[in-house]
Amino acid sequence: MTFDIAIKNGMCYVNEKFLECNIGINENRIEYIGKDEIHADIVVNAEKCFVLPGFFNAHTHSAMTLLRGYAEGLPLKKWLEKIWSIEARMKPKDVYYGAKLACVEMLKSGITCFADMYIHMDEVAKAVKETGIRAVLGYGMADRGSKERAKKELEIGLKFIRDWNNIERIKCMLTPHAPYTCSPEFLMEINEFSKSLNVVKHIHVAETKWEVEEIKRRYGKTPVELLDDIGFLDDKTVIAHAVWLNDQEIDILARRGVSVAHCPASNLKLASGIARVAEMVERGVNVCIGTDSAASNNTLNMLFEIRIASLLQLLRGKNVNTLKMATENGYKAYKLKGGKLKEGYLADLIVIRRSESYYPMYSPENSIVYASKGCEVLHVFVDGKLVVENGEVLNVDESKVLERVEEVARKLVESKS
Amino acid sequence: MTFDIAIKNGMCYVNEKFLECNIGINENRIEYIGKDEIHADIVVNAEKCFVLPGFFNAHTHSAMTLLRGYAEGLPLKKWLEKIWSIEARMKPKDVYYGAKLACVEMLKSGITCFADMYIHMDEVAKAVKETGIRAVLGYGMADRGSKERAKKELEIGLKFIRDWNNIERIKCMLTPHAPYTCSPEFLMEINEFSKSLNVVKHIHVAETKWEVEEIKRRYGKTPVELLDDIGFLDDKTVIAHAVWLNDQEIDILARRGVSVAHCPASNLKLASGIARVAEMVERGVNVCIGTDSAASNNTLNMLFEIRIASLLQLLRGKNVNTLKMATENGYKAYKLKGGKLKEGYLADLIVIRRSESYYPMYSPENSIVYASKGCEVLHVFVDGKLVVENGEVLNVDESKVLERVEEVARKLVESKS
Repeated sequence: MTFDIAIKNGMCYVNEKFLECNIGINENRIEYIGKDEIHADIVVNAEKCFVLPGFFNAHTHSAMTLLRGYAEGLPLKKWLEKIWSIEARMKPKDVYYGAKLACVEMLKSGITCFADMYIHMDEVAKAVKETGIRAVLGYGMADRGSKERAKKELEIGLKFIRDWNNIERIKCMLTPHAPYTCSPEFLMEINEFSKSLNVVKHIHVAETKWEVEEIKRRYGKTPVELLDDIGFLDDKTVIAHAVWLNDQEIDILARRGVSVAHCPASNLKLASGIARVAEMVERGVNVCIGTDSAASNNTLNMLFEIRIASLLQLLRGKNVNTLKMATENGYKAYKLKGGKLKEGYLADLIVIRRSESYYPMYSPENSIVYASKGCEVLHVFVDGKLVVENGEVLNVDESKVLERVEEVARKLVESKS
Repeated sequence: MTFDIAIKNGMCYVNEKFLECNIGINENRIEYIGKDEIHADIVVNAEKCFVLPGFFNAHTHSAMTLLRGYAEGLPLKKWLEKIWSIEARMKPKDVYYGAKLACVEMLKSGITCFADMYIHMDEVAKAVKETGIRAVLGYGMADRGSKERAKKELEIGLKFIRDWNNIERIKCMLTPHAPYTCSPEFLMEINEFSKSLNVVKHIHVAETKWEVEEIKRRYGKTPVELLDDIGFLDDKTVIAHAVWLNDQEIDILARRGVSVAHCPASNLKLASGIARVAEMVERGVNVCIGTDSAASNNTLNMLFEIRIASLLQLLRGKNVNTLKMATENGYKAYKLKGGKLKEGYLADLIVIRRSESYYPMYSPENSIVYASKGCEVLHVFVDGKLVVENGEVLNVDESKVLERVEEVARKLVESKS
């Protein structure tokens, strides 16, 4: 059997178990997984390494790498005020460099696809195109109760979808910011477009206790109840955070097929809380994992995120499979046939080396989840193409990006003072 | 000015600020910090890098790397049962290899000194001697109410001090396990020896809610009150964990000059809780940071530990300086003149490179604490000697250690079944 690419002799994560396999890739799909000898133009020797589906970063704002470390030690509401004052001055070129750094950082940490909502999204799309990563992108919309603003926001969001949906490795989505910044009428309009255009909706929900109280005050119900009442919740909906949910709300999410993008580090950093992930999983909600932005994390590293996600549930006396959440569940949430080492699936996969902290090894899952130093990712394939080799991003001059990011960030912050 | 070693042009963490300086080292001490041009036999160019005092891992059981990942998803009491059944069969040679792996792992992550209590401590001391790290070591003692056992345990603990105290980079200490495994009489006897031998005492205290209830049941007071009543608490005492403390107990610790070794990741992993670190710092307790053992962490990486420690306090709406805790406060707790870049202090220091997640940089402190990938440590000096260069440990054949550790661990676990 001959393939475009063969990844040989790795310990491969197949059906939630690690098995020694060879993997054959043709074009952008996995076409073979098994023990047979295979041939290819490009052969990667994965001996002594682990082969996993790539990580899916299910919630981020990539260009906010520019504001990494800019607003520290603040709870969400105060943090947002400080961040928003800078964002108001962000130019398209700024977003381009911020997103480009994010793509580099994500690829190096094994993230093969990310879901992003922000401003100047054409620039994020360009960064995705150039770096070789995959992404699901949406323009972050908020009407704040103004019909005029709703119209403008929706125009930008829809134009972005027309321009970029299904271009290269990009899928587009509709991304209203949150129930407290978007009116129910606006959300209902977005919902109709989501159906007619067949695109995913992604929104922040129940991130803070304040939000839940505020929505109750305004509408007499919780954010999840509100969204359900207006028909917003379905299996093409991904809600980010979901920290403050009661059992009834979790049941609603499960019943509607809504996915949750859990952001553990950001929820700690902004003092939002610890999400009831285990309960969501028990009740059948598809939970995936996001880093949120680098401004509230401060890295975009899924090896860190799965570790902290697991530790936080253990603190609660619960045990969840964060490796599955960070791979399969992310692709599933955003309707992409990826996140599994399986024939016919997208060839988005990573090769991980054994660092000294993976010794001894009683189970590879536990080593990867609990004992990663955060920099074990060796090679990354996206869409059947090698984009990271021996820890180095191939399509980008990384040092140039880093230089430009510092310039851009300095100017942004200086213009403020 | 000429020195044995010069570290030039790094951004150096001096007095809790980062400044560009040159550092001159003679023998095992820092002898110069400043802007003057200096000369040396060995010159390390730290341009674009950060120079920090080495990290002090204030609580671990190094040889338990052998059991890393062996008992997963269990709360402390059940976890201990599983671990203790294996430890009962551990041979000196096993401990040697486990400790050796721990030393390698710690050095690579910038830990220049660690505090360790365990069994077969001669072997840990050998591993310390060979790898070039610094350590404060004690034999972990528990009488479980038996006078005969108390006598035997103390003999082993005292012999270890006679054999190893002040040998090479080793300080010895007295390390009773915990108030629930050691009788008050035994603890009082240990206290007397600590005074006459002038050595530090290190003990687990208030790790779990269960422990506090158990001690209250037995003695009618909390663990801290009990220890205070028997005169055990003083400024040569370091208590590990201290998760379940009320305000009065924190005041007792502050008044007695007791140091606390906070172990955030382990406390999550074993569902123990989140320690009230900010309150301890506010009330003047010297808090340092420990990884605890790799069996409950699962890495020995201080860059991970300071990040998680900071995030957990932010969740609580508090802000603490974990960088200071992980350096200065550790050395201070164990009575070593180190943990600061300061003339006359021990030349235990590390050079950290900027990874892509340190871009942009608004403050080096925040980058190091919140945005480390976990593997930025480039060079490590202990006692004025280069022991890690470009991320590689110099005094050890790492791959041989890893191989032996797997053999040893496999045999240990197999002999059990």
